[in-house]
Amino acid sequence: MRNLLITIEYDGTNYFGWQRQADRPTVQGEIERAVSEIFGGDMAVTGASRTDRGVHAYGQIANFKTNAAIPADRVHLALNTKLPADIRVRKCVEVPEEFHARYDAKSKIYMYLVKSSREEPVFDRDRVYHTGSKLDLARMRAAKDSLVGTHDFVAFATKKGETENTERTVYGIKIFQRGEYFAFFVYGKGFLWNQVRTMVGTLHEIGRGYFEVSDAKRILESKDRTKAGPNLPPQGLYLLRVNYRLETKSISDDVRNPDFVDNSLE
Amino acid sequence: MRNLLITIEYDGTNYFGWQRQADRPTVQGEIERAVSEIFGGDMAVTGASRTDRGVHAYGQIANFKTNAAIPADRVHLALNTKLPADIRVRKCVEVPEEFHARYDAKSKIYMYLVKSSREEPVFDRDRVYHTGSKLDLARMRAAKDSLVGTHDFVAFATKKGETENTERTVYGIKIFQRGEYFAFFVYGKGFLWNQVRTMVGTLHEIGRGYFEVSDAKRILESKDRTKAGPNLPPQGLYLLRVNYRLETKSISDDVRNPDFVDNSLE
Repeated sequence: MRNLLITIEYDGTNYFGWQRQADRPTVQGEIERAVSEIFGGDMAVTGASRTDRGVHAYGQIANFKTNAAIPADRVHLALNTKLPADIRVRKCVEVPEEFHARYDAKSKIYMYLVKSSREEPVFDRDRVYHTGSKLDLARMRAAKDSLVGTHDFVAFATKKGETENTERTVYGIKIFQRGEYFAFFVYGKGFLWNQVRTMVGTLHEIGRGYFEVSDAKRILESKDRTKAGPNLPPQGLYLLRVNYRLETKSISDDVRNPDFVDNSLE
Repeated sequence: MRNLLITIEYDGTNYFGWQRQADRPTVQGEIERAVSEIFGGDMAVTGASRTDRGVHAYGQIANFKTNAAIPADRVHLALNTKLPADIRVRKCVEVPEEFHARYDAKSKIYMYLVKSSREEPVFDRDRVYHTGSKLDLARMRAAKDSLVGTHDFVAFATKKGETENTERTVYGIKIFQRGEYFAFFVYGKGFLWNQVRTMVGTLHEIGRGYFEVSDAKRILESKDRTKAGPNLPPQGLYLLRVNYRLETKSISDDVRNPDFVDNSLE
């Protein structure tokens, strides 16, 4: 069997998240429908990240297996003829048969966009979190590195009920400002549910002066979810990139927002 | 009677244009509903420009008359509580009783956004015209000034059947490039129906090498609609600003895209 990896960009606004659901539109559901139409049969597609409702992606990664002989570099064009305009496959490469988009992911980069302005945005309303507060970039930058490293991040997680290992590794956080826009890049080996949104929610509280700079470290060490800032809404979150250790180099490096990306991040 | 002028920003994607229709959502319909809810009665609101379905605005201007005593600087906040998130009133000022948003408009600035990229955009799909062609900024800039001045612009108009005076005055055209994005600013006393979209469609043909630079002047002088480039789609068009001669200075100067605006335009 051939194993094909696809890089997917999507606007999550109109979907109930990545994961297939019986009666609601989801990104995985749309991709599986398109893959089935092109390749025949009832195809299953595995995604790297189960993004939540309203969350976007520039570089979601998925894979599926097929015997069809269609060349990998034509697959994305074929799939795009079957997909709605808010989901585009950007690339397709063939990978080893044992490759698994979720289990083999070595790290992920998420971006969270905040717009700080007096007035609510019109054109960005489904693309950013709008805050009416002024944000102090220097305060947020001073706090961010205490959230980097291998820690128990339970204070930033939304618990799902089960007991599980809540230790995770964050490799780096970068924050950039362009006028009214703040972009938070969070780079890590893996994340707890809602961890990125709650970490950014905590930095946002520091940026607007509701928390002290030293509170980031204090909250992390407390392991107490009630101490952290709010879980910010999904529309500011973007799955930017998933990294693998593959001979196929840089499979998801075609990041779209050059202004927001720091190439030294890795 | 007090006469109140409002500046309106809207995402036109979900509306059948500005003008009120009995059974379809329109921007004027939403504004009139909100104004009626706040001020009581069955209020009529006059807009400066009847933007088409899918066309956006950063600075649509409208006015309405009322005896209510609500201070002008609170009106926009009140209206925004009654409006959907894709329409925001940005400002309200009191104007002389005889002021009329359409008849008194002295000039208008439209912006048309084109994205030139190999791949179709996801996040911008309702905000720009996507072209797969490479555009040569220098060629478009060399051609644009032959469309400036007082001319019969019938070659760039979509005729509505009636005979009318098709002479209009264009004060200036500016074209800027930021990476894959091209912004066309067209500043004029008034425009024929579809004139801006067809002028930009013609410059686009010049930019991608299908027309010669000298064709802009030739097409204008031909007065033949079949010679011009296509009427580009509505989602790239933005009503940016309407100018009046009022003591209330700069009523619509809070333009949102500082990167795209050339302050020397006026």
